[in-house]
Amino acid sequence: VTSANNPGRVSIREVAERAGVASSSVSRVLSGHPDVSEDMKARVLSAVAQLRYAPDPFAQSLRRQTSMSVGFAASNISNPILTETMIGAERVLRRHGYSMLMTDAEGTVELDIENIETLRRRRVDGLLLSVTDEQQSDVRQLLSDIDVPVVLVDRDVPTGLAIPRVYFDHASGMASAAQRLWELGHRSVVVISGGPRLPARERLAGIQSVFQTRGGTFLVIEKPFTVEHGSEAIAEVLAMRPRPTAVVAAGNLYTRGALVELRKRGVAIGRDLSLVGCDDITIAQLHQPAVAIVSREPRRAGEVAARLLLAHLDGSDAPTETELRLPTLFVDAPSVAEPNTKR
Amino acid sequence: VTSANNPGRVSIREVAERAGVASSSVSRVLSGHPDVSEDMKARVLSAVAQLRYAPDPFAQSLRRQTSMSVGFAASNISNPILTETMIGAERVLRRHGYSMLMTDAEGTVELDIENIETLRRRRVDGLLLSVTDEQQSDVRQLLSDIDVPVVLVDRDVPTGLAIPRVYFDHASGMASAAQRLWELGHRSVVVISGGPRLPARERLAGIQSVFQTRGGTFLVIEKPFTVEHGSEAIAEVLAMRPRPTAVVAAGNLYTRGALVELRKRGVAIGRDLSLVGCDDITIAQLHQPAVAIVSREPRRAGEVAARLLLAHLDGSDAPTETELRLPTLFVDAPSVAEPNTKR
Repeated sequence: VTSANNPGRVSIREVAERAGVASSSVSRVLSGHPDVSEDMKARVLSAVAQLRYAPDPFAQSLRRQTSMSVGFAASNISNPILTETMIGAERVLRRHGYSMLMTDAEGTVELDIENIETLRRRRVDGLLLSVTDEQQSDVRQLLSDIDVPVVLVDRDVPTGLAIPRVYFDHASGMASAAQRLWELGHRSVVVISGGPRLPARERLAGIQSVFQTRGGTFLVIEKPFTVEHGSEAIAEVLAMRPRPTAVVAAGNLYTRGALVELRKRGVAIGRDLSLVGCDDITIAQLHQPAVAIVSREPRRAGEVAARLLLAHLDGSDAPTETELRLPTLFVDAPSVAEPNTKR
Repeated sequence: VTSANNPGRVSIREVAERAGVASSSVSRVLSGHPDVSEDMKARVLSAVAQLRYAPDPFAQSLRRQTSMSVGFAASNISNPILTETMIGAERVLRRHGYSMLMTDAEGTVELDIENIETLRRRRVDGLLLSVTDEQQSDVRQLLSDIDVPVVLVDRDVPTGLAIPRVYFDHASGMASAAQRLWELGHRSVVVISGGPRLPARERLAGIQSVFQTRGGTFLVIEKPFTVEHGSEAIAEVLAMRPRPTAVVAAGNLYTRGALVELRKRGVAIGRDLSLVGCDDITIAQLHQPAVAIVSREPRRAGEVAARLLLAHLDGSDAPTETELRLPTLFVDAPSVAEPNTKR
C-alpha cells in the first residue's frame, strides 16, 4: 500500500480510486479542463490533498509535449566566446526551469545540420543557434522547416526567413580601431578575416568605412577561422613588400595565431607592426606589449538570447522579427603605435 | 505510389505486401530472428532488394530503444581543457554514428546532478562524466542507480562503485616540476590547489613526494577552481614573510589568474618569484618570460574515453574496472629560475 507520507509515489490511479472517479476525470480536474462539475472538482481535490499527490514533472512535460530543455548548437566550442555565450544562456534558462543541451560542429556545416537534427530528435522545446553558415541552402531549409522556436546568436537571419536574433555591432568597434590606426598615421591596413558571414563581414565593413572613405588602402587575407590560419596569415603579411604597417586580426582565434607567429618571428609588435586583435582580454592584457582589441560581452549575448527564446517558448505571440544589437568596444593598447617608416 | 527510386520512403508494410507476408515477418527476417523459414527469408529479402528498402535509422533506434546519442556532463565549460576533451570525444563518437550532447554545471554539484538527470531523460545511450565532485553522496547515489554505461573522465571512481575511467597521471608531471624547483635551490614551495579531488589531489601528491621526502617545506593555499581565485591566492603569497621563492599554480584557471595578478603587482616572474603553471600552452608560450607548465593532451583523453564508452555500448561485457592512465609532461621555461636570495 502506498503511504501518504511518500507523496512522490502516489499515482493518478490512486487519486481516482480515493475520489471514486475515473483517472481521466482526475486529469481533467488537474489540467483545469472547463467541462468539470463542481462536485467532481471537490472530490478530486480532496483526494489529492489526502494523498498528498504531486504530479510527476516528467510525466507532465510528456503530456504537455514539452521537455523543458533547450538546445544550443554551436559552430565551435574551442572558441571561448561561444562557451561564454553558452554559460550566459544556460544561467537564464535554468532560472526559468529549462535545462540546456549543447552540441559542437567544429566549424562545419554538415555537423551543424546533424546537431540541429539530433537536438530536435531529443525533443528540445527551442533552439539557440550560432552555426557556421546560416545562409548555406541546407541550413536555410532546415531553419525554415523547424517546428520549435529558434533564436540566432550573432548570425544573420537567412534570406527570406523571419527568425529573432541577438548580435553584436562588430562594425562600430572595428571602426573605432581603424580610426585610431588612421590617426596614428597608418594609411594602409591588412585585415585577417573569414568570409561573407557575421561577424567577419561587419568587422571588415567597420574598417573599410574608415580607410576607404579617407583614401587609404585596405587589403584582406581571407582564411578559415582557426588559430593556425591566424599564424599562416601573419607569415603572408611579413612576406609582403613594402611590409604593411598595421594588421587587424579580425577574430579571437586569428589573434591568438598572429601573436604566436609574431613572437616566433621576433617582430616587435607596436614598434615594427601595429596589431589590433579581438576578444581575448586575458591574453591582450598579459601580452607584452598589451594588445589593443575590439571587445564585447559574450555572456550578455547568451543571457539576452535566452530571454528572447523564453518569450517565444511562452506561447505568447512575440514578434519573430525581433533583432537585439549589443555593443562592441575598442580597447586601445601599446600594440598599436605610429608606423615605423625608418624600418 | 512509392517509387523504387526513392528508397528512403519505402515502408516495412510495402515490403510485406510485395513479399506477401505480414509486417512482423519482415521485421523478424531483418532482425535476424532464428525462427524464420528459408522460404520466408528468401521472399522478404527479394522484396527488400526490389523495393530498395532501407530501414529508417531513427525508427530502428526507437525499436532498439537506443537513441544513438551520448551525453557529456562537464563540470565547467569555461575551462578549455574540458572543451578540448569534449571535442576529442565527439570526433570518435561521431565516427561510430553517435551524436554527443553536452551540459555544463559551472562547477556546482547541484547542476551536475540536474544535468545527468536531464541527459538521461533525453534518453542518451551512455554518459561521459567529468563532474565537480564524484564522491558527493547524491552524485554517488545517482551513479550507482544509473542504467546506462558511464565513463569517468579525469575523475576518481566513487567508493564502492565499479565504473571505467580515463585519467591523467597528474602526480608525475608535477613531481618533475618540483624536482626542477628543488635542483634550482628552492627549499619551500606554495601550491595553489583545489581540495581532495582529482586532479588537485594528485598534483599536490606529486609536489609533496619531492619536497617532503627531501625535508623541504610545502604550503597549500586551497581555493575554488576559478581564475579570480588564482589572483586572490597570489595576493596572499605576496603578503607572506619571508616571501616564498616558488609558486605552483596547480590548475590552468589558477595559472591565468596568477599571471594577471603578478603582472598587476609588477613582480618579475623568474627573477623575483618562480612560477609553474598548468595546461595553457598558448599563454605559457606568449608570456614574457615563457611559463613552465605541466602539460597534457585533453583531446586524447576525450578520444580514449569515447572509445571506452563505445566498448560498453556495444553490449559486449567489457570490464567495468577498466582504468586508462594518460601521461602529463613538465615543460621547463624561464618562469622557473634560481631563488633570488638578495631580494
